[in-house]
Amino acid sequence: MQTLSWRDRAVRDALRHIRQNKPFCYGLTNYIAANLSANVLLAIGAGPAIGAALDWQQAFGGHASAVWINAACLMSNTPHEVRQAARAAHEAGVPWVLDPVAVGAGAGEYDRVVQGLLDFRPTAIRGNASELIALAGGKGDGKGVETTLTSQDALPFINDFSRSQGCITAVSGAVDYITNGHETLAVEGGDARLTQVTGAGCSLGALTAALLSTTAEPLTAVAAAHVFYAEASQRASSARGTGSFAIRFLDELSLLDADEI
Amino acid sequence: MQTLSWRDRAVRDALRHIRQNKPFCYGLTNYIAANLSANVLLAIGAGPAIGAALDWQQAFGGHASAVWINAACLMSNTPHEVRQAARAAHEAGVPWVLDPVAVGAGAGEYDRVVQGLLDFRPTAIRGNASELIALAGGKGDGKGVETTLTSQDALPFINDFSRSQGCITAVSGAVDYITNGHETLAVEGGDARLTQVTGAGCSLGALTAALLSTTAEPLTAVAAAHVFYAEASQRASSARGTGSFAIRFLDELSLLDADEI
Amino acid sequence: MQTLSWRDRAVRDALRHIRQNKPFCYGLTNYIAANLSANVLLAIGAGPAIGAALDWQQAFGGHASAVWINAACLMSNTPHEVRQAARAAHEAGVPWVLDPVAVGAGAGEYDRVVQGLLDFRPTAIRGNASELIALAGGKGDGKGVETTLTSQDALPFINDFSRSQGCITAVSGAVDYITNGHETLAVEGGDARLTQVTGAGCSLGALTAALLSTTAEPLTAVAAAHVFYAEASQRASSARGTGSFAIRFLDELSLLDADEI
Repeated sequence: MQTLSWRDRAVRDALRHIRQNKPFCYGLTNYIAANLSANVLLAIGAGPAIGAALDWQQAFGGHASAVWINAACLMSNTPHEVRQAARAAHEAGVPWVLDPVAVGAGAGEYDRVVQGLLDFRPTAIRGNASELIALAGGKGDGKGVETTLTSQDALPFINDFSRSQGCITAVSGAVDYITNGHETLAVEGGDARLTQVTGAGCSLGALTAALLSTTAEPLTAVAAAHVFYAEASQRASSARGTGSFAIRFLDELSLLDADEI
Repeated sequence: MQTLSWRDRAVRDALRHIRQNKPFCYGLTNYIAANLSANVLLAIGAGPAIGAALDWQQAFGGHASAVWINAACLMSNTPHEVRQAARAAHEAGVPWVLDPVAVGAGAGEYDRVVQGLLDFRPTAIRGNASELIALAGGKGDGKGVETTLTSQDALPFINDFSRSQGCITAVSGAVDYITNGHETLAVEGGDARLTQVTGAGCSLGALTAALLSTTAEPLTAVAAAHVFYAEASQRASSARGTGSFAIRFLDELSLLDADEI
Repeated sequence: MQTLSWRDRAVRDALRHIRQNKPFCYGLTNYIAANLSANVLLAIGAGPAIGAALDWQQAFGGHASAVWINAACLMSNTPHEVRQAARAAHEAGVPWVLDPVAVGAGAGEYDRVVQGLLDFRPTAIRGNASELIALAGGKGDGKGVETTLTSQDALPFINDFSRSQGCITAVSGAVDYITNGHETLAVEGGDARLTQVTGAGCSLGALTAALLSTTAEPLTAVAAAHVFYAEASQRASSARGTGSFAIRFLDELSLLDADEI
């Protein structure tokens, strides 16, 4: 299995392209993570819009450069609105990312609606081990929005799942794995305190969508988003506590420089 | 009246237990405070989930270790959804905290729905003086979400109220008072700039719920949450302005160490 | 055209008055910007409440000292709720600010509802060039919530628009322009990184409303809000990245001192 890091030219090229193209990215997400998700996109050079204000999901879902749907947006949006956004992206050929937050944690009605979004064939799916195993039909054993498993536990599930769905799947953990079912990339490093910043995972879904819109190779795009996270959180690791760590993480994302190596 | 502080072993034991148990806490709250509430819980070692996404309020309300309901969640949730969460917690014997934000400030329909949540017998209620006096049937004289009274003004009201409701009531102010109607604890200190950080009070409701799930004695649990706030905000007091004060406050919460004394 | 800056006594008087009066300001806004908007108001000395929780929009819309409506609140609120807030402010003679976020970016149903809010005669309207040109009936060419035009492009549009609507219009950009259709003020300076902080523009709408409630001359009130932004962001410009810039900006707002010159 290949490991991708900040030292790989393909990763820094992905950064160069997104900063040049400033893609307009549209998302449906939960209101806990919405602010951080938008700031992560702005830090990397993309332009975000979030939310289903009347007909935004149709208008922006089909005209954005990329779309992300964080399933916990169902705390603000109806299943119909969420499906409209997914359909608009799918029909317009806009790359879109699904983040199945908390799937498999015990809310059956919610789980079914999230599962139904697979109808619109997401370009990529990201989550933690519990969520992805549950989405793939296994026993995810999630505890609310948190996982009780390691990313390695999820590997066999996401390999099969990616092949059957024809999508890229990325699982976050101590090591992140990104696969299209045929080829798998690993991303190491980062700082575990990222799991103590609410919405950090959700915002990674937004960043993943943004990179899919400006990177030629989808597997590299998804992996690059994970490398940016690992690199920026590692550079932030001297922060004193969890509050300043989150701020420093945003700083480091905004300061990543494709030409620094 | 006894005063509780960081120097009391019971308080540091409460911290020790929550960091060991990492309780899963579920909340309905307003979208202004949701992000900070989640980060406060993560800083103290708990795992939060927030919001009524389809059937979350039934699934998580009954299976979480603790639940908090910030009444201003009614800006995103229907009265029915909020009652479902309160009922689920009540019926499952999960400790739950009610924060009656802005009750008594002039919105009669809102006030009635909040009052109706008392049907599900919250374990604890927290708020400012105006809100608690209004909830107890007095003239709270609130100005939006802010109080025009001192915590001491609320003392007689919350004593009677706690006895009649069989709950713990905590009023925030220059000195915080926490009572079960028979015994009252005072928590001093803190930094007044906490009132210039939006959602800080709301997040205290989340923290209070979390502590109720891992502390044997409920009155101590509620008071310990207030001590953590007072201690962390005091340690943050050298921050330059209100923005960095909020970040520093989170840092200090995350760095509280039960073994430091 | 006159330029207004922190060196003008009228601006510092506006700060003095708002810090003395601590106006209660009520807003409907989007959940991405809600937290920052509340913190900006608290930093300047105002007391915010946000959201349409049951009857808040009628109760608070009519009794607040000022109201702001950020049109993207339609991601959480129905058109009816938003109109109730605007009507309550209008009928009670409460000054209110409209921020027509993303108008003209391609969502026709949304655009019509926002246009309909002009029925309730906002005291002031603020936005970027694309939004204001679109609201005034021109081709705004917006890209989601971002503009592709300069504030100077908007000047002829907002002059005519202000005269016909009898309101003040403020356009943000490298130079901000504030006009009542007869007299125009320019505000220079600031730091462009403010456009990389999500919700910064939305929060300026909240600040503008607050100042209208405590400043005798409306044109000065609106311009003063823009000067506070320019001054605080300039003072924050030594911040390392976009994360700490946002925090430092809040710090500097909270530390603005009317007596420092």
